[in-house]
Amino acid sequence: MNFHIMTLFPEMIQQSLSNSITGRASDKGYISFNAVNIRDYTNDYKHHKVDDYTYGGGAGMLMQAQPIYDCYLSIKNKISEKTDKKPRVIYVTPQGSVFNQKMAAELAKEEDIIFLCGHYEGVDERVLEEIVTEYVSIGDYVLTGGELPAMVMIDAISRLVPGVLSNDESAMTESFNNNLLEYPQYSRPEEWMGKKVPAILLSGDHKKVDEWRLEQSIIRTKERRPDLYEKWLLENPPKPEKKKRKR
Amino acid sequence: MNFHIMTLFPEMIQQSLSNSITGRASDKGYISFNAVNIRDYTNDYKHHKVDDYTYGGGAGMLMQAQPIYDCYLSIKNKISEKTDKKPRVIYVTPQGSVFNQKMAAELAKEEDIIFLCGHYEGVDERVLEEIVTEYVSIGDYVLTGGELPAMVMIDAISRLVPGVLSNDESAMTESFNNNLLEYPQYSRPEEWMGKKVPAILLSGDHKKVDEWRLEQSIIRTKERRPDLYEKWLLENPPKPEKKKRKR
Repeated sequence: MNFHIMTLFPEMIQQSLSNSITGRASDKGYISFNAVNIRDYTNDYKHHKVDDYTYGGGAGMLMQAQPIYDCYLSIKNKISEKTDKKPRVIYVTPQGSVFNQKMAAELAKEEDIIFLCGHYEGVDERVLEEIVTEYVSIGDYVLTGGELPAMVMIDAISRLVPGVLSNDESAMTESFNNNLLEYPQYSRPEEWMGKKVPAILLSGDHKKVDEWRLEQSIIRTKERRPDLYEKWLLENPPKPEKKKRKR
Repeated sequence: MNFHIMTLFPEMIQQSLSNSITGRASDKGYISFNAVNIRDYTNDYKHHKVDDYTYGGGAGMLMQAQPIYDCYLSIKNKISEKTDKKPRVIYVTPQGSVFNQKMAAELAKEEDIIFLCGHYEGVDERVLEEIVTEYVSIGDYVLTGGELPAMVMIDAISRLVPGVLSNDESAMTESFNNNLLEYPQYSRPEEWMGKKVPAILLSGDHKKVDEWRLEQSIIRTKERRPDLYEKWLLENPPKPEKKKRKR
Protein backbone atom coordinates (compact mmCIF):
# COMPACT_ATOMS: atom_id res chain seq x y z
CA MET A 1 0.00 0.00 0.00
CA ASN A 2 1.32 3.41 -1.01
CA PHE A 3 0.60 6.67 0.75
CA HIS A 4 1.24 9.85 -1.23
CA ILE A 5 1.19 13.03 0.81
CA MET A 6 0.98 16.50 -0.77
CA THR A 7 2.38 18.90 1.81
CA LEU A 8 4.45 22.02 2.47
CA PHE A 9 6.38 20.09 5.18
CA PRO A 10 7.56 16.82 3.62
CA GLU A 11 10.40 16.33 6.15
CA MET A 12 7.90 16.38 9.02
CA ILE A 13 5.96 13.53 7.42
CA GLN A 14 8.99 11.42 6.48
CA GLN A 15 10.58 11.83 9.91
CA SER A 16 7.50 10.97 11.94
CA LEU A 17 6.38 7.98 9.92
CA SER A 18 9.88 6.50 9.83
CA ASN A 19 9.63 5.78 13.57
CA SER A 20 8.27 2.76 15.35
CA ILE A 21 5.77 0.40 13.72
CA THR A 22 5.08 2.39 10.53
CA GLY A 23 8.83 2.79 9.99
CA ARG A 24 9.43 -0.95 10.38
CA ALA A 25 6.54 -1.75 8.00
CA SER A 26 7.92 0.61 5.41
CA ASP A 27 11.42 -0.90 5.74
CA LYS A 28 9.89 -4.33 5.13
CA GLY A 29 7.99 -3.05 2.10
CA TYR A 30 4.42 -3.56 3.36
CA ILE A 31 3.68 0.14 2.97
CA SER A 32 5.44 3.12 1.42
CA PHE A 33 5.35 6.86 2.12
CA ASN A 34 5.86 9.42 -0.57
CA ALA A 35 5.75 12.96 0.85
CA VAL A 36 5.76 15.46 -2.03
CA ASN A 37 6.51 19.16 -1.56
CA ILE A 38 3.74 21.27 -3.13
CA ARG A 39 6.16 24.18 -3.29
CA ASP A 40 8.25 22.31 -5.89
CA TYR A 41 5.35 22.67 -8.33
CA THR A 42 4.69 26.39 -8.20
CA ASN A 43 4.95 28.36 -11.46
CA ASP A 44 6.28 31.27 -9.43
CA TYR A 45 9.93 30.42 -10.07
CA LYS A 46 11.13 33.62 -8.46
CA HIS A 47 9.57 33.54 -4.99
CA HIS A 48 8.26 29.94 -4.87
CA LYS A 49 5.01 31.37 -3.59
CA VAL A 50 2.10 28.94 -3.08
CA ASP A 51 -0.44 31.22 -1.37
CA ASP A 52 -2.25 34.51 -1.91
CA TYR A 53 -5.03 36.69 -0.48
CA THR A 54 -8.67 35.58 -0.32
CA TYR A 55 -11.21 37.09 -2.74
CA GLY A 56 -13.97 38.88 -0.87
CA GLY A 57 -11.67 39.69 2.02
CA GLY A 58 -10.82 37.84 5.19
CA ALA A 59 -7.81 37.23 7.36
CA GLY A 60 -4.97 35.00 6.30
CA MET A 61 -3.60 33.53 3.10
CA LEU A 62 -5.10 30.83 0.93
CA MET A 63 -3.20 28.03 -0.82
CA GLN A 64 -3.54 28.54 -4.56
CA ALA A 65 -4.90 26.02 -7.06
CA GLN A 66 -2.04 25.69 -9.57
CA PRO A 67 0.81 24.29 -7.42
CA ILE A 68 -1.51 21.76 -5.78
CA TYR A 69 -2.98 20.66 -9.09
CA ASP A 70 0.40 20.16 -10.75
CA CYS A 71 1.68 18.31 -7.68
CA TYR A 72 -1.38 16.06 -7.90
CA LEU A 73 -0.83 15.39 -11.62
CA SER A 74 2.76 14.26 -11.05
CA ILE A 75 1.59 11.76 -8.41
CA LYS A 76 -1.36 10.59 -10.48
CA ASN A 77 0.82 10.02 -13.54
CA LYS A 78 3.17 7.85 -11.50
CA ILE A 79 0.27 5.79 -10.18
CA SER A 80 -1.34 5.39 -13.61
CA GLU A 81 1.81 3.69 -14.91
CA LYS A 82 0.79 0.64 -12.90
CA THR A 83 -3.01 0.86 -12.61
CA ASP A 84 -6.05 2.27 -14.41
CA LYS A 85 -7.87 2.93 -11.16
CA LYS A 86 -8.37 6.59 -10.27
CA PRO A 87 -6.72 7.10 -6.87
CA ARG A 88 -8.72 8.36 -3.92
CA VAL A 89 -7.71 11.85 -2.82
CA ILE A 90 -8.39 12.78 0.79
CA TYR A 91 -8.43 16.42 1.85
CA VAL A 92 -7.73 16.67 5.55
CA THR A 93 -10.07 19.30 7.00
CA PRO A 94 -12.25 19.96 10.06
CA GLN A 95 -15.03 20.39 7.46
CA GLY A 96 -15.00 16.67 6.60
CA SER A 97 -16.70 13.45 7.70
CA VAL A 98 -15.27 12.28 11.01
CA PHE A 99 -12.66 9.54 10.67
CA ASN A 100 -13.29 6.31 12.57
CA GLN A 101 -12.10 2.71 12.74
CA LYS A 102 -14.57 1.55 10.09
CA MET A 103 -13.28 4.14 7.62
CA ALA A 104 -9.70 3.06 8.41
CA ALA A 105 -10.58 -0.56 7.60
CA GLU A 106 -12.23 0.44 4.35
CA LEU A 107 -9.28 2.62 3.25
CA ALA A 108 -6.81 -0.16 4.12
CA LYS A 109 -8.10 -2.07 1.08
CA GLU A 110 -6.79 0.56 -1.36
CA GLU A 111 -3.45 0.30 -3.10
CA ASP A 112 -2.77 4.04 -3.42
CA ILE A 113 -4.17 6.92 -1.41
CA ILE A 114 -3.30 10.57 -1.89
CA PHE A 115 -3.55 13.01 1.02
CA LEU A 116 -3.70 16.77 0.62
CA CYS A 117 -2.52 18.68 3.71
CA GLY A 118 -3.76 22.26 3.91
CA HIS A 119 -2.04 25.15 5.64
CA TYR A 120 -2.64 28.86 6.19
CA GLU A 121 -6.32 29.81 5.99
CA GLY A 122 -7.33 27.01 3.60
CA VAL A 123 -7.22 25.96 -0.04
CA ASP A 124 -8.76 27.46 -3.19
CA GLU A 125 -12.13 25.74 -3.63
CA ARG A 126 -11.65 25.11 -7.35
CA VAL A 127 -8.72 22.72 -6.98
CA LEU A 128 -10.58 20.85 -4.24
CA GLU A 129 -13.56 20.39 -6.59
CA GLU A 130 -11.20 19.21 -9.30
CA ILE A 131 -9.17 16.56 -7.46
CA VAL A 132 -10.59 15.69 -4.03
CA THR A 133 -12.70 12.52 -3.71
CA GLU A 134 -13.39 12.80 0.03
CA TYR A 135 -13.16 15.32 2.87
CA VAL A 136 -12.10 13.80 6.17
CA SER A 137 -11.62 15.22 9.68
CA ILE A 138 -9.97 13.38 12.58
CA GLY A 139 -12.10 15.17 15.19
CA ASP A 140 -13.85 18.36 16.22
CA TYR A 141 -10.82 20.52 16.93
CA VAL A 142 -8.71 22.95 14.92
CA LEU A 143 -5.05 22.26 14.12
CA THR A 144 -2.31 24.42 12.58
CA GLY A 145 -2.12 22.24 9.44
CA GLY A 146 -3.13 19.01 7.76
CA GLU A 147 0.13 17.10 8.36
CA LEU A 148 -0.59 15.70 11.84
CA PRO A 149 -4.12 14.53 10.97
CA ALA A 150 -2.86 12.93 7.72
CA MET A 151 -0.23 11.05 9.74
CA VAL A 152 -2.88 9.96 12.24
CA MET A 153 -5.01 8.49 9.43
CA ILE A 154 -1.99 6.87 7.77
CA ASP A 155 -1.04 5.29 11.10
CA ALA A 156 -4.56 3.96 11.74
CA ILE A 157 -4.86 2.62 8.18
CA SER A 158 -1.32 1.15 8.07
CA ARG A 159 -1.79 -1.04 11.11
CA LEU A 160 -4.71 -2.75 9.35
CA VAL A 161 -2.63 -3.60 6.27
CA PRO A 162 -1.73 -7.32 6.42
CA GLY A 163 1.83 -7.90 7.61
CA VAL A 164 2.28 -4.51 9.27
CA LEU A 165 1.47 -5.69 12.79
CA SER A 166 2.88 -8.88 14.26
CA ASN A 167 0.28 -11.43 15.43
CA ASP A 168 0.77 -10.32 19.01
CA GLU A 169 0.14 -6.71 18.19
CA SER A 170 -2.88 -7.25 15.96
CA ALA A 171 -4.83 -9.08 18.66
CA MET A 172 -5.41 -5.82 20.46
CA THR A 173 -7.70 -4.38 17.79
CA GLU A 174 -10.63 -6.52 18.85
CA SER A 175 -11.63 -4.82 22.08
CA PHE A 176 -12.51 -1.59 20.33
CA ASN A 177 -14.78 -3.26 17.81
CA ASN A 178 -17.49 -4.49 20.15
CA ASN A 179 -18.03 -1.01 21.68
CA LEU A 180 -16.41 -1.87 25.01
CA LEU A 181 -13.28 -0.19 26.33
CA GLU A 182 -10.27 -2.27 27.34
CA TYR A 183 -10.11 -3.81 30.84
CA PRO A 184 -7.28 -2.85 33.25
CA GLN A 185 -4.00 -4.72 32.70
CA TYR A 186 -1.06 -5.55 34.95
CA SER A 187 2.53 -6.63 34.39
CA ARG A 188 5.45 -7.53 36.66
CA PRO A 189 6.07 -7.10 39.57
CA GLU A 190 3.13 -8.63 41.49
CA GLU A 191 3.35 -5.82 44.01
CA TRP A 192 4.36 -2.26 43.17
CA MET A 193 4.24 0.62 45.66
CA GLY A 194 1.90 -1.41 47.85
CA LYS A 195 -0.50 -2.09 44.98
CA LYS A 196 -1.08 -5.77 44.20
CA VAL A 197 -2.15 -7.37 40.94
CA PRO A 198 -5.78 -8.60 41.39
CA ALA A 199 -5.57 -12.18 42.69
CA ILE A 200 -7.87 -13.54 40.00
CA LEU A 201 -5.29 -12.74 37.29
CA LEU A 202 -2.77 -14.97 39.06
CA SER A 203 -5.28 -17.83 39.55
CA GLY A 204 -4.65 -19.55 36.22
CA ASP A 205 -8.42 -19.97 35.81
CA HIS A 206 -8.92 -18.65 32.28
CA LYS A 207 -12.71 -18.70 32.45
CA LYS A 208 -12.72 -16.58 35.61
CA VAL A 209 -10.09 -14.22 34.16
CA ASP A 210 -12.25 -13.70 31.04
CA GLU A 211 -15.35 -13.06 33.15
CA TRP A 212 -13.51 -10.54 35.33
CA ARG A 213 -12.09 -8.74 32.30
CA LEU A 214 -15.50 -8.48 30.63
CA GLU A 215 -17.01 -7.15 33.86
CA GLN A 216 -14.23 -4.55 34.19
CA SER A 217 -14.68 -3.50 30.55
CA ILE A 218 -18.39 -2.97 31.11
CA ILE A 219 -17.88 -0.95 34.31
CA ARG A 220 -15.23 1.21 32.67
CA THR A 221 -17.22 1.84 29.49
CA LYS A 222 -20.33 2.77 31.47
CA GLU A 223 -18.28 5.24 33.51
CA ARG A 224 -16.08 6.82 30.85
CA ARG A 225 -18.01 6.50 27.60
CA PRO A 226 -21.76 6.20 28.28
CA ASP A 227 -22.36 6.66 24.53
CA LEU A 228 -20.44 3.46 23.71
CA TYR A 229 -22.04 1.65 26.64
CA GLU A 230 -25.51 2.41 25.23
CA LYS A 231 -24.46 0.95 21.86
CA TRP A 232 -23.09 -2.15 23.56
CA LEU A 233 -26.27 -2.59 25.61
CA LEU A 234 -28.40 -2.53 22.46
CA GLU A 235 -26.35 -5.36 21.01
CA ASN A 236 -26.09 -7.26 24.30
CA PRO A 237 -29.42 -6.92 26.15
CA PRO A 238 -29.26 -8.30 29.71
CA LYS A 239 -30.69 -11.84 29.98
CA PRO A 240 -33.21 -12.11 32.81
CA GLU A 241 -31.94 -14.09 35.81
CA LYS A 242 -29.39 -16.18 33.96
CA LYS A 243 -25.73 -16.76 34.65
CA LYS A 244 -23.35 -14.08 33.40
CA ARG A 245 -22.59 -14.43 29.72
CA LYS A 246 -19.10 -15.11 28.46
CA ARG A 247 -17.67 -13.28 25.48
CA MET B 1 3.27 27.09 28.47
CA ASN B 2 5.35 23.92 28.86
CA PHE B 3 4.51 20.54 27.38
CA HIS B 4 6.27 17.54 28.93
CA ILE B 5 5.95 14.32 26.96
CA MET B 6 6.80 10.91 28.41
CA THR B 7 7.51 8.66 25.44
CA LEU B 8 9.63 5.85 24.00
CA PHE B 9 10.19 7.96 20.86
CA PRO B 10 11.35 11.41 21.97
CA GLU B 11 13.00 12.22 18.58
CA MET B 12 9.68 11.73 16.80
CA ILE B 13 8.05 14.33 19.05
CA GLN B 14 10.90 16.85 18.92
CA GLN B 15 11.19 16.61 15.13
CA SER B 16 7.50 16.97 14.36
CA LEU B 17 6.77 19.81 16.73
CA SER B 18 9.83 21.78 15.60
CA ASN B 19 8.16 22.36 12.21
CA SER B 20 5.84 25.12 11.12
CA ILE B 21 3.79 27.13 13.60
CA THR B 22 4.56 25.15 16.76
CA GLY B 23 8.26 25.30 15.90
CA ARG B 24 8.15 29.06 15.44
CA ALA B 25 6.22 29.52 18.71
CA SER B 26 8.76 27.45 20.56
CA ASP B 27 11.67 29.42 19.06
CA LYS B 28 9.97 32.60 20.25
CA GLY B 29 9.48 31.15 23.73
CA TYR B 30 5.66 31.13 23.84
CA ILE B 31 5.65 27.37 24.37
CA SER B 32 8.26 24.71 25.12
CA PHE B 33 8.44 20.98 24.39
CA ASN B 34 10.24 18.59 26.66
CA ALA B 35 10.14 15.04 25.28
CA VAL B 36 11.52 12.63 27.92
CA ASN B 37 12.55 9.06 27.11
CA ILE B 38 10.86 6.63 29.52
CA ARG B 39 13.59 4.08 28.73
CA ASP B 40 16.15 6.32 30.45
CA TYR B 41 14.40 5.64 33.77
CA THR B 42 14.26 1.85 33.80
CA ASN B 43 15.95 0.03 36.69
CA ASP B 44 16.89 -2.72 34.24
CA TYR B 45 20.35 -1.35 33.57
CA LYS B 46 21.34 -4.41 31.56
CA HIS B 47 18.65 -4.65 28.87
CA HIS B 48 16.89 -1.27 29.31
CA LYS B 49 13.62 -3.17 29.24
CA VAL B 50 10.41 -1.19 29.88
CA ASP B 51 7.78 -3.86 29.13
CA ASP B 52 6.78 -7.37 30.19
CA TYR B 53 4.01 -9.97 29.80
CA THR B 54 0.44 -9.37 31.00
CA TYR B 55 -0.82 -11.15 34.12
CA GLY B 56 -3.77 -13.39 33.34
CA GLY B 57 -2.56 -13.93 29.78
CA GLY B 58 -3.18 -12.04 26.56
CA ALA B 59 -1.23 -11.11 23.48
CA GLY B 60 1.42 -8.44 23.48
CA MET B 61 3.60 -6.71 26.02
CA LEU B 62 2.60 -4.19 28.65
CA MET B 63 4.57 -1.10 29.67
CA GLN B 64 5.67 -1.54 33.28
CA ALA B 65 4.97 0.81 36.17
CA GLN B 66 8.45 1.62 37.49
CA PRO B 67 10.11 3.35 34.49
CA ILE B 68 7.02 5.47 33.84
CA TYR B 69 6.70 6.46 37.49
CA ASP B 70 10.34 7.47 37.84
CA CYS B 71 10.16 9.40 34.58
CA TYR B 72 7.10 11.20 35.93
CA LEU B 73 8.84 12.04 39.22
CA SER B 74 11.79 13.65 37.43
CA ILE B 75 9.42 15.90 35.44
CA LYS B 76 7.27 16.68 38.47
CA ASN B 77 10.28 17.62 40.55
CA LYS B 78 11.42 20.04 37.88
CA ILE B 79 7.98 21.65 37.73
CA SER B 80 7.65 21.90 41.52
CA GLU B 81 10.79 24.06 41.65
CA LYS B 82 8.69 26.90 40.22
CA THR B 83 5.12 26.15 41.31
CA ASP B 84 3.15 24.34 44.03
CA LYS B 85 0.40 23.35 41.63
CA LYS B 86 0.15 19.62 40.87
CA PRO B 87 0.53 19.28 37.09
CA ARG B 88 -2.19 17.66 35.00
CA VAL B 89 -1.14 14.33 33.53
CA ILE B 90 -2.93 13.20 30.38
CA TYR B 91 -2.83 9.57 29.33
CA VAL B 92 -3.49 9.33 25.62
CA THR B 93 -5.80 6.35 25.02
CA PRO B 94 -8.80 5.30 22.93
CA GLN B 95 -10.38 4.56 26.33
CA GLY B 96 -10.56 8.26 27.21
CA SER B 97 -12.97 11.19 26.88
CA VAL B 98 -13.00 12.46 23.31
CA PHE B 99 -10.86 15.55 22.78
CA ASN B 100 -12.59 18.61 21.30
CA GLN B 101 -12.05 22.33 20.80
CA LYS B 102 -13.55 23.20 24.19
CA MET B 103 -11.12 20.89 25.97
CA ALA B 104 -8.25 22.44 23.98
CA ALA B 105 -9.28 25.93 25.14
CA GLU B 106 -9.50 24.79 28.75
CA LEU B 107 -6.09 23.09 28.68
CA ALA B 108 -4.50 26.16 27.03
CA LYS B 109 -4.87 27.95 30.39
CA GLU B 110 -2.42 25.61 32.14
CA GLU B 111 1.25 26.38 32.59
CA ASP B 112 2.52 22.79 32.53
CA ILE B 113 0.92 19.67 31.08
CA ILE B 114 2.42 16.19 31.13
CA PHE B 115 1.48 13.66 28.45
CA LEU B 116 2.01 9.92 28.78
CA CYS B 117 2.28 8.13 25.41
CA GLY B 118 1.55 4.40 25.59
CA HIS B 119 2.93 1.73 23.28
CA TYR B 120 2.71 -2.03 22.90
CA GLU B 121 -0.47 -3.51 24.39
CA GLY B 122 -0.95 -0.80 27.04
CA VAL B 123 0.31 0.36 30.43
CA ASP B 124 0.22 -1.25 33.88
CA GLU B 125 -2.97 -0.02 35.55
CA ARG B 126 -1.28 0.78 38.87
CA VAL B 127 0.94 3.54 37.52
CA LEU B 128 -2.02 5.06 35.68
CA GLU B 129 -3.99 5.15 38.96
CA GLU B 130 -1.00 6.73 40.66
CA ILE B 131 -0.17 9.58 38.29
CA VAL B 132 -2.82 10.16 35.60
CA THR B 133 -5.33 12.98 36.14
CA GLU B 134 -7.26 12.50 32.87
CA TYR B 135 -7.72 9.95 30.08
CA VAL B 136 -8.14 11.53 26.67
CA SER B 137 -8.75 10.10 23.18
CA ILE B 138 -8.51 12.08 19.93
CA GLY B 139 -11.17 9.95 18.21
CA ASP B 140 -12.69 6.51 17.79
CA TYR B 141 -9.84 4.80 15.98
CA VAL B 142 -6.83 2.74 17.05
CA LEU B 143 -3.26 3.96 16.51
CA THR B 144 0.12 2.26 16.91
CA GLY B 145 1.12 4.51 19.82
CA GLY B 146 0.34 7.60 21.84
CA GLU B 147 2.86 9.93 20.16
CA LEU B 148 0.74 11.15 17.22
CA PRO B 149 -2.38 11.82 19.31
CA ALA B 150 -0.28 13.65 21.93
CA MET B 151 1.15 15.83 19.16
CA VAL B 152 -2.33 16.48 17.80
CA MET B 153 -3.50 17.70 21.22
CA ILE B 154 -0.36 19.77 21.73
CA ASP B 155 -0.88 21.39 18.33
CA ALA B 156 -4.56 22.19 19.02
CA ILE B 157 -3.75 23.57 22.49
CA SER B 158 -0.66 25.53 21.36
CA ARG B 159 -2.50 27.55 18.74
CA LEU B 160 -4.80 28.88 21.49
CA VAL B 161 -1.89 30.11 23.64
CA PRO B 162 -1.65 33.91 23.28
CA GLY B 163 1.14 34.94 20.90
CA VAL B 164 1.44 31.61 19.10
CA LEU B 165 -0.73 32.58 16.14
CA SER B 166 -0.41 35.90 14.37
CA ASN B 167 -3.59 38.02 14.28
CA ASP B 168 -4.27 36.88 10.74
CA GLU B 169 -4.06 33.25 11.63
CA SER B 170 -6.10 33.40 14.81
CA ALA B 171 -9.13 34.87 13.08
CA MET B 172 -9.89 31.51 11.51
CA THR B 173 -10.82 29.82 14.77
CA GLU B 174 -14.17 31.50 14.91
CA SER B 175 -16.02 29.60 12.20
CA PHE B 176 -15.72 26.32 14.04
CA ASN B 177 -17.17 27.66 17.26
CA ASN B 178 -20.68 28.43 16.09
CA ASN B 179 -21.21 24.88 14.73
CA LEU B 180 -21.03 25.89 11.08
CA LEU B 181 -18.35 24.65 8.67
CA GLU B 182 -16.25 27.11 6.72
CA TYR B 183 -17.55 28.57 3.43
CA PRO B 184 -15.68 27.97 0.13
CA GLN B 185 -12.71 30.29 -0.47
CA TYR B 186 -10.92 31.50 -3.60
CA SER B 187 -7.57 33.09 -4.34
CA ARG B 188 -5.83 34.35 -7.48
CA PRO B 189 -6.23 33.94 -10.42
CA GLU B 190 -9.83 34.98 -11.10
CA GLU B 191 -10.15 32.17 -13.61
CA TRP B 192 -8.42 28.80 -13.29
CA MET B 193 -9.01 25.89 -15.66
CA GLY B 194 -12.25 27.51 -16.82
CA LYS B 195 -13.53 27.91 -13.25
CA LYS B 196 -14.31 31.48 -12.22
CA VAL B 197 -14.35 33.01 -8.75
CA PRO B 198 -18.03 33.68 -7.82
CA ALA B 199 -18.81 37.23 -8.99
CA ILE B 200 -20.17 38.30 -5.62
CA LEU B 201 -16.71 37.94 -4.05
CA LEU B 202 -15.33 40.48 -6.52
CA SER B 203 -18.22 42.93 -5.99
CA GLY B 204 -16.69 44.79 -3.06
CA ASP B 205 -20.09 44.69 -1.32
CA HIS B 206 -19.09 43.40 2.11
CA LYS B 207 -22.66 42.90 3.30
CA LYS B 208 -23.51 40.72 0.31
CA VAL B 209 -20.23 38.79 0.65
CA ASP B 210 -21.02 38.05 4.29
CA GLU B 211 -24.55 36.92 3.44
CA TRP B 212 -23.27 34.65 0.66
CA ARG B 213 -20.64 33.12 2.93
CA LEU B 214 -23.15 32.42 5.70
CA GLU B 215 -25.51 30.81 3.20
CA GLN B 216 -22.69 28.63 1.81
CA SER B 217 -21.65 27.62 5.32
CA ILE B 218 -25.19 26.56 6.12
CA ILE B 219 -25.57 24.54 2.88
CA ARG B 220 -22.24 22.82 3.41
CA THR B 221 -22.85 22.01 7.07
CA LYS B 222 -26.30 20.57 6.29
CA GLU B 223 -24.79 18.38 3.59
CA ARG B 224 -21.58 17.21 5.24
CA ARG B 225 -22.24 17.32 8.97
CA PRO B 226 -25.99 17.05 9.69
CA ASP B 227 -25.14 16.59 13.40
CA LEU B 228 -23.53 20.05 13.57
CA TYR B 229 -26.32 21.54 11.46
CA GLU B 230 -28.91 20.33 14.00
CA LYS B 231 -26.93 22.00 16.80
CA TRP B 232 -26.72 25.22 14.82
CA LEU B 233 -30.46 25.15 14.05
CA LEU B 234 -31.28 24.86 17.76
CA GLU B 235 -29.26 27.99 18.45
CA ASN B 236 -30.47 29.84 15.35
CA PRO B 237 -34.15 28.99 14.82
CA PRO B 238 -35.48 30.31 11.49
CA LYS B 239 -37.37 33.60 11.87
CA PRO B 240 -40.78 33.47 10.21
CA GLU B 241 -40.94 35.58 7.01
CA LYS B 242 -38.27 38.05 7.91
CA LYS B 243 -35.22 39.17 5.99
CA LYS B 244 -32.19 36.91 6.22
CA ARG B 245 -30.20 37.44 9.37
CA LYS B 246 -26.64 38.65 9.28
CA ARG B 247 -23.96 37.12 11.48
